[in-house]
Amino acid sequence: MILTVTLNTALDITYRVRTLRPHASHRVSEVTERPGGKGLNVARVLAALGHEVTVTGFAGGATGRVVQEQLTKTPGVVDALVPVTGATRRTIAVVDDHTGDTTQLNEPGPTITPAEWSAFQESYEDLVTSASAVALCGSLPPGVPVGAYAGLVRAARAAEVPVLLDTSGEALRRGIAARPDIIKPNADELAELTGSHEPLRATQDARRRGARAVVASLGEAGLLALTPEGRWQATPPTRVHGNPTGAGDAAVAGLLSGLVEHMPWPDRLARAAALSAASVVAPVAGEFDQRAYGELLGRVAVTGKVSAA
Amino acid sequence: MILTVTLNTALDITYRVRTLRPHASHRVSEVTERPGGKGLNVARVLAALGHEVTVTGFAGGATGRVVQEQLTKTPGVVDALVPVTGATRRTIAVVDDHTGDTTQLNEPGPTITPAEWSAFQESYEDLVTSASAVALCGSLPPGVPVGAYAGLVRAARAAEVPVLLDTSGEALRRGIAARPDIIKPNADELAELTGSHEPLRATQDARRRGARAVVASLGEAGLLALTPEGRWQATPPTRVHGNPTGAGDAAVAGLLSGLVEHMPWPDRLARAAALSAASVVAPVAGEFDQRAYGELLGRVAVTGKVSAA
Repeated sequence: MILTVTLNTALDITYRVRTLRPHASHRVSEVTERPGGKGLNVARVLAALGHEVTVTGFAGGATGRVVQEQLTKTPGVVDALVPVTGATRRTIAVVDDHTGDTTQLNEPGPTITPAEWSAFQESYEDLVTSASAVALCGSLPPGVPVGAYAGLVRAARAAEVPVLLDTSGEALRRGIAARPDIIKPNADELAELTGSHEPLRATQDARRRGARAVVASLGEAGLLALTPEGRWQATPPTRVHGNPTGAGDAAVAGLLSGLVEHMPWPDRLARAAALSAASVVAPVAGEFDQRAYGELLGRVAVTGKVSAA
Repeated sequence: MILTVTLNTALDITYRVRTLRPHASHRVSEVTERPGGKGLNVARVLAALGHEVTVTGFAGGATGRVVQEQLTKTPGVVDALVPVTGATRRTIAVVDDHTGDTTQLNEPGPTITPAEWSAFQESYEDLVTSASAVALCGSLPPGVPVGAYAGLVRAARAAEVPVLLDTSGEALRRGIAARPDIIKPNADELAELTGSHEPLRATQDARRRGARAVVASLGEAGLLALTPEGRWQATPPTRVHGNPTGAGDAAVAGLLSGLVEHMPWPDRLARAAALSAASVVAPVAGEFDQRAYGELLGRVAVTGKVSAA
């Protein structure tokens, strides 16, 4: 199985309203709810691709219960979330029917106690031994030490399990030093890490900081990958319109599934870019359009060169 | 015990954000949650006044579970909510720290099936026999017949239990014809019922439609009561500033508690007006400031005249 870690899980709620106006009262016409947090989105895409996935991280309170109930109903996904006393956060996306704009309200989420963090680490070290790959995804909740991902990367490497890290800021800076197999920053995260807004230079810098491979997601420009095997750019055939939330998570699922299926890098990148674009056109964040994925897959342009051995 | 009925229960969630801006992403700095719906607010105020209260209505889904868990923790309140398949609605009040303005998002709530409505009626007829008074509060959820309150008023009258109706629109129009002991419309609800924006005339008209007593809540002007015993106006001593949500529910609790304590009408009205003002100054909707209530109670001006027998 593939293990995905989401330390800052959420229940993602989407409200549709006619027009959002501050200080007014709104009747919500449609409510959708789904387990959220980057690692849970990655898990859903992996499961849809036919992989067995185990999800871990934290869940607590009434909202945590809803997240776990909904995960139980997702075929291919096994719930190994660790219970905490605090309540899992909700995020609310208010979609304006008139403009299509989204207004986001994010709850702060629970503070993790030292005992809860220890319980998680113990469970993680146990799970990682039976994983074919690990994805460490998203921000750190309050209470979790800023060097958390470095420790989790080292534990995966000690178990000889490939590990992908997808986070930002100081958590990424610390995590990268523990030498993860892949990191997948977007342009902003890369710039924050390296100080450079030039994608190729920043990607090279990020590799020097310790990542074995860096796959930068550059929005409409697709993916730029620097790996020990070579350097490639994967570009989707057309501009796609829709909701970009979750596009990075779909790319992570593409990279990880390609890794465990022993695909060559160009094929992994084509899959990741096609999944990413197919998630933008899906109506709901964190899902992808299977038909669009099939159509896009053969049309992603992958250019690059293999490294001299 | 006093029985309060809330057919459209809710979980009322309050978010504090720095400034609400459409299309932006917001970090919520504070989350509060409480059982909501008018009858549950009335019940909390009654319990704080020392009365035993039973609450009924509907509860379902994960949100219904949270409402019931929180009710269990409220001393003096007994939960007799009837389970339904649909999910209890959430309401979200987004309070802007900068302006103090509130933006409201209300979920639609579940549709009640005919079997669920029958189960409720059976439970209600059972509960009403041991009640000293009944309050029927708020709007009707989808699926409940528009004449619902008329039937519930008749069942209370058949059991010789005094019944207060606090609703609006067609539910009020139908309910009033079944001759409730008290109705407590606000100015807008009175105008909608009678077509008149002149409070005294509208209150007289509302009485002619079947209510034994009409207590109109007129905001800062206080309460205007037309009863078989006389006509009174109760006016709080000063303008109060704050959150008017729940002020009407506090007034209902004042009227009902005064009724079961056999207080004369002027004392009931003074209590209802003081509670209403003390709920406006409380930081959270559906609560009241005990100290403000104590200070205001002796300073409410009640003027009026007793009817010729």
